[in-house]
Amino acid sequence: MKHNFGAGPGILPHEVLKQAAAAVIDFNGTGLSLLEISHRSSEFEAVLDEAVSLVKELFSVPEGYSVLFLQGGASTQFALAPYNLLPDGGKAAYLETGVWANKAIKEAKFFGDVEIVATSKESNFTYIPTNYTIPTDAAYFHITSNNTIYGTQLQHFPKSPVPVVCDMSSDIFSRTVNVADFGLIYAGAQKNMGPAGVTLVIVKDDLLGKTGRKIPAMFNYQVQIEGGSMYNTPPCFAIYVSMLTLKWLKAKGGVPAIEAENNEKAKVLYEEIDRNPLFKAVAAVEDRSRMNVCFVSENPEHEKPFLKLCDEKGIVGLKGHRSVGGFRASIYNALPITSVYVLIDAMREFAEKNK
Amino acid sequence: MKHNFGAGPGILPHEVLKQAAAAVIDFNGTGLSLLEISHRSSEFEAVLDEAVSLVKELFSVPEGYSVLFLQGGASTQFALAPYNLLPDGGKAAYLETGVWANKAIKEAKFFGDVEIVATSKESNFTYIPTNYTIPTDAAYFHITSNNTIYGTQLQHFPKSPVPVVCDMSSDIFSRTVNVADFGLIYAGAQKNMGPAGVTLVIVKDDLLGKTGRKIPAMFNYQVQIEGGSMYNTPPCFAIYVSMLTLKWLKAKGGVPAIEAENNEKAKVLYEEIDRNPLFKAVAAVEDRSRMNVCFVSENPEHEKPFLKLCDEKGIVGLKGHRSVGGFRASIYNALPITSVYVLIDAMREFAEKNK
Repeated sequence: MKHNFGAGPGILPHEVLKQAAAAVIDFNGTGLSLLEISHRSSEFEAVLDEAVSLVKELFSVPEGYSVLFLQGGASTQFALAPYNLLPDGGKAAYLETGVWANKAIKEAKFFGDVEIVATSKESNFTYIPTNYTIPTDAAYFHITSNNTIYGTQLQHFPKSPVPVVCDMSSDIFSRTVNVADFGLIYAGAQKNMGPAGVTLVIVKDDLLGKTGRKIPAMFNYQVQIEGGSMYNTPPCFAIYVSMLTLKWLKAKGGVPAIEAENNEKAKVLYEEIDRNPLFKAVAAVEDRSRMNVCFVSENPEHEKPFLKLCDEKGIVGLKGHRSVGGFRASIYNALPITSVYVLIDAMREFAEKNK
Repeated sequence: MKHNFGAGPGILPHEVLKQAAAAVIDFNGTGLSLLEISHRSSEFEAVLDEAVSLVKELFSVPEGYSVLFLQGGASTQFALAPYNLLPDGGKAAYLETGVWANKAIKEAKFFGDVEIVATSKESNFTYIPTNYTIPTDAAYFHITSNNTIYGTQLQHFPKSPVPVVCDMSSDIFSRTVNVADFGLIYAGAQKNMGPAGVTLVIVKDDLLGKTGRKIPAMFNYQVQIEGGSMYNTPPCFAIYVSMLTLKWLKAKGGVPAIEAENNEKAKVLYEEIDRNPLFKAVAAVEDRSRMNVCFVSENPEHEKPFLKLCDEKGIVGLKGHRSVGGFRASIYNALPITSVYVLIDAMREFAEKNK
């Protein structure tokens, strides 16, 4: 048995994987694989409809928003958000909280001016900046809700005079969110929602069509809305697995239930890090992520032997990102708290051996 | 047992589906699903490397070309081809052979001028135009090698004074192609190469960087080449299934072997259509597709009962596209000739009953 702490593509529920594997052989008794049926078949249309319904239900998406399943990951949305929302000659505001925010900023500059309202770059993004002013003449304000690499997370979303655009790739469906507070939410599926290869977009309809810019079909949210995420052949399998994962989440009690579990997982793990003399958390206490728990060894020579011990215990994916070092325990929705306890036991055993 | 004549996402080899399903549960003995391992893991990098190698080997891709696995389907390439190859204020030439060519033309117009060198629109695209002149001042000449909806196919590729860009979505790896004759080849995977959700791009490196246009990262072939198709998280599962399908093709003897099989499948089916008094082929004889065999009933009232008979025999996906009507037998690489014989038998039985 493996305990998958990988940062993404990350752990998925075992029952979802079993159903997905079965559908690869025979989808719903059709005698055909899910991989070889038409996306226009009633069977697949039902999958997409259910995926959209589950997003709306689990996230209480209000009227006036559209839910899309697109391709290309959050990196594509870094460009599509300004392509669709930032008028020529206009300005967008960004909060720089890490590499992903930085890449989003880079792409926005192709379409207009960017004002970085605050950054924590000088401390290698170990905290989320506060006390900034969002310009009222910006087309939107862009934030990254969770920063996988540094283990920071916005605990509260800022009040904003302009529409908020949020990259939720690494904490979508892990905590309750008031969708009405956002103009655009996007997320690559491969952390909490499904496998790599599909991107969720939730967009407020009345923000669209205001840039004065002509947008090629595949990059145009309006075209994708009109096509019901099927302007062209969608990534059927990735949507199916996402639907199964959302269904699993609903059966668990939805977002509030998983949020309570996630809080508990994070709490016990940070407690151990704070208690254990051999380890130290990376992020500012008030900004600690409940998805990616980044920590380092007080003694750098402990790093390799600890990873070796983890490996022996079936703990995988714990190595930290190269720009931070140390360890990163990604504790996404599908990771059971029992796996967190296995990690905590390993940390205690290691401390015992090395005291 | 089903006989899958669907136009796409289309039939995949049974052994590929079995391996894909197994990998969804446990990938290569890692104890983890392929869906929940890092794209940066050595295990997945080996998959991507093998997929690229197989493309190069099966298609004899010469030096100076890059092979990419991207997202967004051919519809995204309709925009990315001109984005990357058509200079601002420049011109591109297009051959209009159907709806897909038409969509490609529409997207190109966002980036420059388009000259349609010839069209068969007036006959609802039942043939491939000839006797046209490719302007020597065009940045490239765009063609669609096979037209799924109308059942037409370019039997020979035109000689061109400018680089040829080819949408090979529906016949890639079904026939031998001299890659050196092309500047850019792209193809959605979901007909002959794999499942929906990944797009193959083969691009001649020295054509890039000449538009004078700044291109966002995800839309920039050069960035994707430098990132080895991993500028961001790729669609891992779709790439894996494509790799397995390419491996299956190699084991069968590669493209020349499958081309011989495809020719035979098309030959026996067209022979039956031509012989059978109840059916009539749609496309001009010299342009008949070896991938999508489109035919209609001489008597429109025969349509429904014939589809019913097919259904009873496990023949699926035979209904023609709404813009052509009748029937479309897609006989992609993975469809065994035995399935074609089952269809032929059904046609004979139906003719016998209705004479």
